Amino acid sequence: MIIDLVGASRLDDIEHIEKALRRCVEVSKATLLHIHLHHFTPNGGVSGVAVLSESHISIHSWPEADYAALDVFMCGEAEPHNAIEVLREAFSPSDIRVGEHLRGQDMV
Amino acid sequence: MIIDLVGASRLDDIEHIEKALRRCVEVSKATLLHIHLHHFTPNGGVSGVAVLSESHISIHSWPEADYAALDVFMCGEAEPHNAIEVLREAFSPSDIRVGEHLRGQDMV
Repeated sequence: MIIDLVGASRLDDIEHIEKALRRCVEVSKATLLHIHLHHFTPNGGVSGVAVLSESHISIHSWPEADYAALDVFMCGEAEPHNAIEVLREAFSPSDIRVGEHLRGQDMV
Repeated sequence: MIIDLVGASRLDDIEHIEKALRRCVEVSKATLLHIHLHHFTPNGGVSGVAVLSESHISIHSWPEADYAALDVFMCGEAEPHNAIEVLREAFSPSDIRVGEHLRGQDMV
């Protein structure tokens, strides 16, 4: 899932973002292997990735534009759609754009 | 860019994959902030992410299917297309499927 948050808040709050990512992993019934977030400047954007047994979740935020770009990439029995509600609650976006890109169906 | 490698080799070689990711960052003129790779079993698939100043590169490989799914997500002045040739040389795929998904154009 390719998720764009528009008109969103708290996109410069790295602790809040980490909590939201961890909650996304949890509600998606995925398994967290590694998480790393980077804060570009104290009040600037955040880039973060959670590596999962089922692939990954990533976020890149531009708080100055109230915009964040997330990928929720999962395989197997995970339930990535459950993450959408977590993101809505965490960042109060005025709009969430969700795209789906299926891949590897004929491969794995 | 959403890149699928089909009929690819060395997808269970974590050191080779890390080297290829680092080379992708380099040729794309991006800046590496953090890299993490996970090997699921000694000869199994690898999941890896490189967090960049310009966003991220991720890989998930299924060596048993000779298949890998990569994302090369970059903003700014980076040149993500340069990574394709690196992947071709590193993993000798019989086919590379490259999709492009532009996002945030009206936002940032």
